[in-house]
Amino acid sequence: MASKRGKKLETLKKQLMDITGTENVDDSTSIRLAYSYDATPNFQSLPDFVVSPRSAEEVAAILKKCSETSTPVYTRGSGTNLCADTCPVQGGIVLLTKHLNRILELDKENLTVTVQPGVITKSIADLVEKEDLFYPPDPSSMKISTIGGNLAENSGGLRGLKYGVTKDYVMALQIALPNGALIRTGGKLTKDVAGYDLTHLFVGSEGTLGVITEATLKLIPKPETQKTILALYQDIEAAGRSVSAIIAHKIIPVTLEFLDQDTIRAVEDFAHIGLPTNVKAILLIVQDGPKEIVARDIHQIAQICREEQAIDVQLAASDEEAEKLATARRSALSALARLKPTTILEDATVPRSKIAPMVRAIADIAMKYQVRMSTFGHAGDGNLHPTCLTDARDHEEMGRVEEAFAEIFEKAIELGGTLTGEHGVGATKAPYLEWKLGKAGVDVMREIKQSIDPSGIMNPGKVFAKETQERMAAAK
Amino acid sequence: MASKRGKKLETLKKQLMDITGTENVDDSTSIRLAYSYDATPNFQSLPDFVVSPRSAEEVAAILKKCSETSTPVYTRGSGTNLCADTCPVQGGIVLLTKHLNRILELDKENLTVTVQPGVITKSIADLVEKEDLFYPPDPSSMKISTIGGNLAENSGGLRGLKYGVTKDYVMALQIALPNGALIRTGGKLTKDVAGYDLTHLFVGSEGTLGVITEATLKLIPKPETQKTILALYQDIEAAGRSVSAIIAHKIIPVTLEFLDQDTIRAVEDFAHIGLPTNVKAILLIVQDGPKEIVARDIHQIAQICREEQAIDVQLAASDEEAEKLATARRSALSALARLKPTTILEDATVPRSKIAPMVRAIADIAMKYQVRMSTFGHAGDGNLHPTCLTDARDHEEMGRVEEAFAEIFEKAIELGGTLTGEHGVGATKAPYLEWKLGKAGVDVMREIKQSIDPSGIMNPGKVFAKETQERMAAAK
Repeated sequence: MASKRGKKLETLKKQLMDITGTENVDDSTSIRLAYSYDATPNFQSLPDFVVSPRSAEEVAAILKKCSETSTPVYTRGSGTNLCADTCPVQGGIVLLTKHLNRILELDKENLTVTVQPGVITKSIADLVEKEDLFYPPDPSSMKISTIGGNLAENSGGLRGLKYGVTKDYVMALQIALPNGALIRTGGKLTKDVAGYDLTHLFVGSEGTLGVITEATLKLIPKPETQKTILALYQDIEAAGRSVSAIIAHKIIPVTLEFLDQDTIRAVEDFAHIGLPTNVKAILLIVQDGPKEIVARDIHQIAQICREEQAIDVQLAASDEEAEKLATARRSALSALARLKPTTILEDATVPRSKIAPMVRAIADIAMKYQVRMSTFGHAGDGNLHPTCLTDARDHEEMGRVEEAFAEIFEKAIELGGTLTGEHGVGATKAPYLEWKLGKAGVDVMREIKQSIDPSGIMNPGKVFAKETQERMAAAK
Repeated sequence: MASKRGKKLETLKKQLMDITGTENVDDSTSIRLAYSYDATPNFQSLPDFVVSPRSAEEVAAILKKCSETSTPVYTRGSGTNLCADTCPVQGGIVLLTKHLNRILELDKENLTVTVQPGVITKSIADLVEKEDLFYPPDPSSMKISTIGGNLAENSGGLRGLKYGVTKDYVMALQIALPNGALIRTGGKLTKDVAGYDLTHLFVGSEGTLGVITEATLKLIPKPETQKTILALYQDIEAAGRSVSAIIAHKIIPVTLEFLDQDTIRAVEDFAHIGLPTNVKAILLIVQDGPKEIVARDIHQIAQICREEQAIDVQLAASDEEAEKLATARRSALSALARLKPTTILEDATVPRSKIAPMVRAIADIAMKYQVRMSTFGHAGDGNLHPTCLTDARDHEEMGRVEEAFAEIFEKAIELGGTLTGEHGVGATKAPYLEWKLGKAGVDVMREIKQSIDPSGIMNPGKVFAKETQERMAAAK
């Protein structure tokens, strides 16, 4: 039995090597171990091979071969996702995009940039800023994440409130399909209604439908200027109310981040930038645009925060100080991760008018299950990151953590929200997906998946759960 | 044979009446005739029934019944589309959304409006503007088109350049599926990655996958102010170059419309607002935003136009005059339609850097086939409307018109563009769809269609052609 499998693997290895060259198929134990996990705690599984194609055509040929042999394919950029999407839970191959790492074109007339999937997100942002252009999506991991990963996960970031998320900047894709075809969707076109919106179907499909081998991204003119303020609160709900009040005044800041005291202390301890550790909550608010408009908006925002009982509002003195604050915020996960062996970060999201009740609910749920939960996140777009500091070796505590998160998901949905705002479903939230979409909604997804990937080779074990978690409300 | 079909129809009629009430199923000849055509020239076909459900549940029940009986369903709002999407080419039922005509909620905290599909687009825009909010998509037909039609077609409009199109403002949908299920997608959420983006799959799917029974639309704060200018040219290509130059200067106007001399004369003759009829082309340019920024942008735009050989640049003296100009532009199709018995308006779209070559190509092609072609449209987003004035009774001329449009489609695709920027594929462009998407791309669409609508009841005869038109380049 084992030798039959061994023979089958040997044959597949030769076939893959024929496609990509000998040096791009690796089945050494060290490499298989290195790609057996990603940034998600508690998921590990060995792939049979790690394969690194050098072109879109090679990707397509690999998928064709894998469809014929029913071999699972786990596409991977930098593996920074938080829903185990790049963990090869059913073995097979990890398909690395590391050789597809070129920025192919910067089109200054049409304001687009065309890239391969293995390009690091931040290098795109840096390149276009030199030309006074702007690629707004900025996931916290952008220094190491690849754009291919961002596309697969439809990554968000700190600027979602004003500028939207990754999918809002995708104009065209080249996609390798499980049947070995390469297709192109969209174009450098603001308007295009020739056929179904396959571009948006593939963005955010978490590697379950095909492999994105090229993307044309929309750019916008770089905002002229940018200002940052911190609003400090001794009352968490007052911070939540400020968020709603700013939007209700029809001001849409770029960034409107929330940090609770636990997070503030962890970040300050990590970054030493002088954050006030004696307050219950901070809002970090950024506005960009023409100078005179930014000045006016920032003045109004400060006034609204004070009216909502902020105890202090501080303007960043310089661009450097503002950048330090943003970097500190981006380091929140790393900072919290130092405190306990295991950090589980979720991203339940609610309509922004429901931020205050959601923050309260998270605190209540943490208390109920006696788990340590810090909360920070993109309050302006309702996207919170309740973060649990725990220890995976303590099975009893992990049980309570899981129950607490299930209750958080349920609460978010009850408030008109969703299970995941920007991290994806992957393996971690698959059992809960039906809570948001209903059985009929998941059925539509399953039929689409089946029609495009009939052999089920693309990222199997993700998004679609074997069994849906029983709802807590139903169980009560 | 006829009586067998007659019996089947009688049974179906009773079943439909059971669902919607007797008064909402009509098979009188006058009503069937009234709904046998839409705004598209040269398409007419009688439906068996015209059915007007009163709720989403009734829509779902109708679809279930039609799936069971393999009855075609043609969903229709106001029938203003230009690709024959609401023409019941295979009989069956026309499903009218006229009873689903309520604006359900205006949420000022989350900046959303929730509507039923039968609501007239302009009434949404008017309602939200009273609250200093803004729904940007503005198809030319917005005074009579329904939002359901806009969603099905992913309608564009005059503000696409800065604000995007209908799909960019859809946050959540309720959808009745062919199997009789009602699903909800999305939410009042800037960020939501729980599952495939079904919202964007259904928007623009032209009624071929299901019926949208409710939509939650994103609103933005109403721009503070708005200014309009006209730039006049004696050289069409200079107008094209101005468009590219404005964008290359990183100014993104709301509206950047092009009208050629033929269109200018027709519009002036229709609207009498004092347009200069002795120039070869006009650009109508609108910018909105904070007062000081609009003033600065308009000044710069005027300068760029003059540098690109505009013979004159005129600022609209008042909001009323600006509104008159916009209304005149919106009337272009009606104005041209008075000149000849048949008006065929297409919407080939190219990257905006290719506007000048595309305008030139359209003129050359019209000359080659000896047809009368006027061109106007949304130059800023590369979305042109070459409009042919002809007579459907003249079969020889109609043959040349068809060949001319095929060559225009081919040219647009060659320049990196698309067959249709905002009108949809429908019946008119289905034979050309493969030119843009390739066989593998259309196959993916077909598989999705088959998986969601296995009985093929939703808008049959549209989008998917029986046969693809042979490419002219291939034929050469």
